[in-house]
Amino acid sequence: MPGHGRRTIAEVGEQWLVERIQRAVRHSATGDVAVIGDDAAILPALRGARHPMVVSTDVLVEGTHWRGGHLTPAQLGRRALVANLSDLAAMAATPRWFMLGLAMPPSQPVAWFQGFLRGLMRAADEFDCPLIGGDLVRAPVVSISITICGQCHTARPARRDAAHPGDTVCLTGDIGRARLALDVLDDRSRPQRGGARIIAKHRHPVPRLSEASALARGGAVRAMIDISDGLISDIGWICRLSGVGAEIDLAALPVAPVVRRCLADRGEDCMTWAASSGEEFELLLTTRRRPEDLRALLRDEGIRTPITPIGRITSGRRVRWTRAGHPVAPPRNGLFRHFSQG
Amino acid sequence: MPGHGRRTIAEVGEQWLVERIQRAVRHSATGDVAVIGDDAAILPALRGARHPMVVSTDVLVEGTHWRGGHLTPAQLGRRALVANLSDLAAMAATPRWFMLGLAMPPSQPVAWFQGFLRGLMRAADEFDCPLIGGDLVRAPVVSISITICGQCHTARPARRDAAHPGDTVCLTGDIGRARLALDVLDDRSRPQRGGARIIAKHRHPVPRLSEASALARGGAVRAMIDISDGLISDIGWICRLSGVGAEIDLAALPVAPVVRRCLADRGEDCMTWAASSGEEFELLLTTRRRPEDLRALLRDEGIRTPITPIGRITSGRRVRWTRAGHPVAPPRNGLFRHFSQG
Repeated sequence: MPGHGRRTIAEVGEQWLVERIQRAVRHSATGDVAVIGDDAAILPALRGARHPMVVSTDVLVEGTHWRGGHLTPAQLGRRALVANLSDLAAMAATPRWFMLGLAMPPSQPVAWFQGFLRGLMRAADEFDCPLIGGDLVRAPVVSISITICGQCHTARPARRDAAHPGDTVCLTGDIGRARLALDVLDDRSRPQRGGARIIAKHRHPVPRLSEASALARGGAVRAMIDISDGLISDIGWICRLSGVGAEIDLAALPVAPVVRRCLADRGEDCMTWAASSGEEFELLLTTRRRPEDLRALLRDEGIRTPITPIGRITSGRRVRWTRAGHPVAPPRNGLFRHFSQG
Repeated sequence: MPGHGRRTIAEVGEQWLVERIQRAVRHSATGDVAVIGDDAAILPALRGARHPMVVSTDVLVEGTHWRGGHLTPAQLGRRALVANLSDLAAMAATPRWFMLGLAMPPSQPVAWFQGFLRGLMRAADEFDCPLIGGDLVRAPVVSISITICGQCHTARPARRDAAHPGDTVCLTGDIGRARLALDVLDDRSRPQRGGARIIAKHRHPVPRLSEASALARGGAVRAMIDISDGLISDIGWICRLSGVGAEIDLAALPVAPVVRRCLADRGEDCMTWAASSGEEFELLLTTRRRPEDLRALLRDEGIRTPITPIGRITSGRRVRWTRAGHPVAPPRNGLFRHFSQG
């Protein structure tokens, strides 16, 4: 690609880099492994198992993905694993094992390491996902690289590219708290009440593993992704990869009440704001079934997580946004990008 | 552990950290996955396959594992994969797939990224090991985290803990060039000839995959490890984990002729020096069979890699060093440690 010789990766942007990797993979990939571009890669079934395996890697870097003071070492350990577990949930898989690559400066306190390990291993126990190996190296900043493997609940994992026109678009849980938590922790927002509930979404996130399992086993999931880059970006992924469009009703978004109050105090529109809230670890899915059928599937398993219909998949290629039936301008994504678009 | 509250990880050392992780894993691990402490973790067989899978993670950090100028981006891409392939070789497994976690500063040149990807994917093609997914993130320095999965050639992977008293200890290839390459690249050593052959061991390393496969399928391998921390350290691993000792003859070490000449010019003892040479990616193995039987197994597959007997496994717990039959003091390991011992 002439002309790129002196440019930096920040100038070409993340999407360009990912496409270069995808092209290189298409030229090289052999055999029975899935293409890159979903929450996880898909592998053949284990001996004795009926369904495929999925594998996912997430790297978290100090300063990029978390800041000192926002999380205790134990909370960070938990959060690192949950980010990966959420990718498995998005594929409708149950965790099997993970590998840990941990890079630290030599000056890192032992107490930090012990706290991190405690939080990580408690989460490993809680979600029945043993650590099976890894690597420990020296680096100028802490970074945590986790590769996680899961077993699918069904013969076809829940992929991003499987949405059909006419599908209902649904969200689990609520959105907005993850973004507001960073404002509260940075003292940019001072909620009168509900502060603990806001911060909990950042410090003690919960992956939607049992929800994904119940919905997938019930045959209710067509396409699925977890909200990690924010709704605006993640619905875009589903539409692009499925070759479809969507119509999303901003007024229907399940924005947490505590976020509505806080944003009202600040005079901001909580709907467009929450549509840019990343690392929510909620599931965004499309389904042929009625929302009440999905709720019944969860209820049968004793799960009380809300399911909210927020729009539908269309045959166009665009994502159109409405507010209670009236078209509105697409909200801008106010989210962090690893490498800004040139 | 009281008293560690204010200490740094450099003070307690790498071994202490690894033991803490192993303890935490023993308290938590469930099911059919292997314990931490070998070149790779061992997993159950895939459907349709007879033998187990192995998984390994390696993290390479700029400044710690390589320095600019020592490697082109393409050489670095190759080397990153080879370091992982060598771990699979040490388990007697054939590569199946890998995941890539790549962290880079936004200022990283696009040309660097393209070169790295080219070298990485060429190696992926050469060793038939497709990239199946990963993560791309921002960080202050480049770091490369690879998780690789392989399929074992036999029902029992080649582990570190399987050496028996009476086994012969053998090395593939030659040692010393990997360490000397760094001296040459840093201009601390100026060989009169053979410079290219020395540097090749650093810039274009070759994993001993076909050697490991031929030896394991021939039933010739008892315990095996790849030389990544240097012979002194790696024979120590086999002995500790197998509960045995060893007697190693320094005079028998297959030190590359070009290293012998260079060290003679410098007035240093090449044998003890080469015993501290890390990242050789050679195989250190123990066997009940005669060295000529091992050579025949390789010859049958058209492989001409030398196999050198360097000692034997003993029933004690110590590694004793001799030189042509005479006991000598154990050589000191002059190698880099990620976190120095306190």
